[in-house]
Amino acid sequence: MRYSRLFGRTAKTAPHDADSANARLLAQGGFVDQLMAGVYTFLPLGLRVLHKVKNIIREEMNAVGGQEILMPAILPKEPWEKTGRWSDPGPEVMFQFKGRGGADMGLGWTHEEIVTPLAKQFIRSYKDLPFSVYQIQDKFRNEPRAKSGLLRGREFSMKDMYSFHKDEADLVQYYDKVRDAYLRVFERCGLHALVVEASGGAFSKYSHEFQTLTDSGEDIVYYCGKCEYAQNREISEYKAGDTCPKCGGTMKEGKAIEIGNIFKLMTRFSAAFDVGYTDADGAKKPVLMGCYGIGPSRVVGTVAEIHHDEKGLIWPKSVAPFQVHLVMLTAKEETATAKVRETAYRLEQELESAGIEVLFDDREEVRAGEKFADADLIGNPLRLVVSEKTLAQSSVEWKPRMSSEAALVPLAEVVAKCREFLAA
Amino acid sequence: MRYSRLFGRTAKTAPHDADSANARLLAQGGFVDQLMAGVYTFLPLGLRVLHKVKNIIREEMNAVGGQEILMPAILPKEPWEKTGRWSDPGPEVMFQFKGRGGADMGLGWTHEEIVTPLAKQFIRSYKDLPFSVYQIQDKFRNEPRAKSGLLRGREFSMKDMYSFHKDEADLVQYYDKVRDAYLRVFERCGLHALVVEASGGAFSKYSHEFQTLTDSGEDIVYYCGKCEYAQNREISEYKAGDTCPKCGGTMKEGKAIEIGNIFKLMTRFSAAFDVGYTDADGAKKPVLMGCYGIGPSRVVGTVAEIHHDEKGLIWPKSVAPFQVHLVMLTAKEETATAKVRETAYRLEQELESAGIEVLFDDREEVRAGEKFADADLIGNPLRLVVSEKTLAQSSVEWKPRMSSEAALVPLAEVVAKCREFLAA
Repeated sequence: MRYSRLFGRTAKTAPHDADSANARLLAQGGFVDQLMAGVYTFLPLGLRVLHKVKNIIREEMNAVGGQEILMPAILPKEPWEKTGRWSDPGPEVMFQFKGRGGADMGLGWTHEEIVTPLAKQFIRSYKDLPFSVYQIQDKFRNEPRAKSGLLRGREFSMKDMYSFHKDEADLVQYYDKVRDAYLRVFERCGLHALVVEASGGAFSKYSHEFQTLTDSGEDIVYYCGKCEYAQNREISEYKAGDTCPKCGGTMKEGKAIEIGNIFKLMTRFSAAFDVGYTDADGAKKPVLMGCYGIGPSRVVGTVAEIHHDEKGLIWPKSVAPFQVHLVMLTAKEETATAKVRETAYRLEQELESAGIEVLFDDREEVRAGEKFADADLIGNPLRLVVSEKTLAQSSVEWKPRMSSEAALVPLAEVVAKCREFLAA
Repeated sequence: MRYSRLFGRTAKTAPHDADSANARLLAQGGFVDQLMAGVYTFLPLGLRVLHKVKNIIREEMNAVGGQEILMPAILPKEPWEKTGRWSDPGPEVMFQFKGRGGADMGLGWTHEEIVTPLAKQFIRSYKDLPFSVYQIQDKFRNEPRAKSGLLRGREFSMKDMYSFHKDEADLVQYYDKVRDAYLRVFERCGLHALVVEASGGAFSKYSHEFQTLTDSGEDIVYYCGKCEYAQNREISEYKAGDTCPKCGGTMKEGKAIEIGNIFKLMTRFSAAFDVGYTDADGAKKPVLMGCYGIGPSRVVGTVAEIHHDEKGLIWPKSVAPFQVHLVMLTAKEETATAKVRETAYRLEQELESAGIEVLFDDREEVRAGEKFADADLIGNPLRLVVSEKTLAQSSVEWKPRMSSEAALVPLAEVVAKCREFLAA
């Protein structure tokens, strides 16, 4: 992609209402544009990151047998009345409205009320269990205080998975498998998550949240510095300095961002929709359910929150919008500039032919300092510079975003070295 | 994918309210599930088709320089007031509601009101033009009479692209380029589209619709049987039997489904949002716009409408949910069955290792006739059968969905022959 043609621009100043690092950096870097409080457009750079996060999630959900479906966003009132959630939490959370003819509808903020009767159609006997289905979709919440950029929005992307089981042992086994898959998702996105015990509601002792420690987090968690056993403050039996009940280490207090949660729903929804199955012995039994959520846009916001410095974003390789940020610096003389141009455009081609994603800053009217500042702000993992000076040594300047050191790499070795760097 | 684990099932009977072939076949085949009138869940089979259609569109839009973005679905009232569309067509088309605090919002049914002020931020001079951005997203229409399965929904997927130009010549040139890209999209999806002149609104003589001829279409078009010059009845100066004004052929009347449209917006929206640029001569000029829509879910419905027979769907290879439908038929004796099983599971593996998408009907309790009926209903391009009979000749039964003839293919040649068939 040529930077001169890229839709979206870096901005020298942050939006006046940016209340968090991710809101500020993602807007300044040209990743997102705020349409209204808590509602964002993803520009090409931001959408590339979002797609990569979604694909990592998709791969890991498929790996645990999740089957992808896509449920609607506009939902009829009836199934929500069956569970009581049309009125509680009702419009506090759900955007509700009437369609033509007066039918009540609402926008999906979760989909138990839809997936449970859907699954019911396909469950007869124990042989149909277990299974799990998931979707990746924008969800909506009538938030009173949308804030913190992508962290708490009124429209946000969500991967929600629902699993169906014949008994609690089977549910617990799958629940643990998904927990591990979640940890893989976050690790692949460059986030270290604590598995935090949280309120389990009426049917389970605990649910589990995935929390990333950061001073900009809204949640407070107590966690063991040694084994990472953790509880959300809302239910915690511990305080900082207490002895960890699991390993004898010391509990600490920390701020954190919740980036996922998993929940044993047990029969909460299968009972509401009368979803049962016939067991091997002929007995009718209720189906047990689990649900599992990750917000891809919130993950993007959290990665931005965690991985940046004073100059800008520092994307992990796995989710960076582009792998290489190629900068061309024209020379004073036209002959030298022609050589720089010829080399830079050829290098762009060679990298792309090698399957490497390149954002090529081909602008000629922009000063070197501004181009470097833009590269740092956007935060792709590797910056390459082609200039008269580097070409004097038949080389390219090589600087990973994480490093403050630049080096010269011979032109002939650049593609191979990029491959090696990106695979590391 | 093992059919025994697939979420969604074929049904022997059609939904009672299925008013079209696509509604009937997509529901019976286990591709979609209707949640309410005009609102569908995509089950795994249907979502695979939808993803393939979206990816074909994405490739062709990228090829004409479109940059993918993602705008929100919930939209504030203000920009719609600027163009007058908050009240006209207003709630006739747009679902409108209030968020907490009383702010008016609506669900996006098109995005000129959002993309135009967004683009304005990035346009200063003629050097910033032209460009085009697109998104693939669910859109919403407050339809009074949602009907015809995926053809007219209240929630439906849409690819909407918007282009920005310095003058009409540049707009026209890009418009023609997109028209050709659209024809490639439809051709790749197995649809032949007529480019049909339709009302251009206040600013252009014509817009263009892409219409696929079929008796189940809702639109009436007049078209030349020879050169395919065509007009929508709504504006047509011709009737059946007239002489084609372009080539002297004969105009015919036909029913058709609209699967896309392109529109020269000229300054309709750039004027409303005061989007101009500074030209090379320093003059301030208005930006011209074009817009370009294809509904991926409507394309899926249209493909189903066009490509089926009395037994079921007949997917083009490019968008079929799976490439190969592998059927295993157990034998009477357990020894023979063990050999069938061993061969079928191994073949599934070999095909998948070769990058071929396989739906493997591994059910053992289901009769052969039912399995064949399911394969015909689902409509993958190629059916392979492993049974005691085929193994007696070290072969697999080979039957393309399009053909009524089955043949035997030696086991050792199956993978290579599949590759050849799918590439053809």
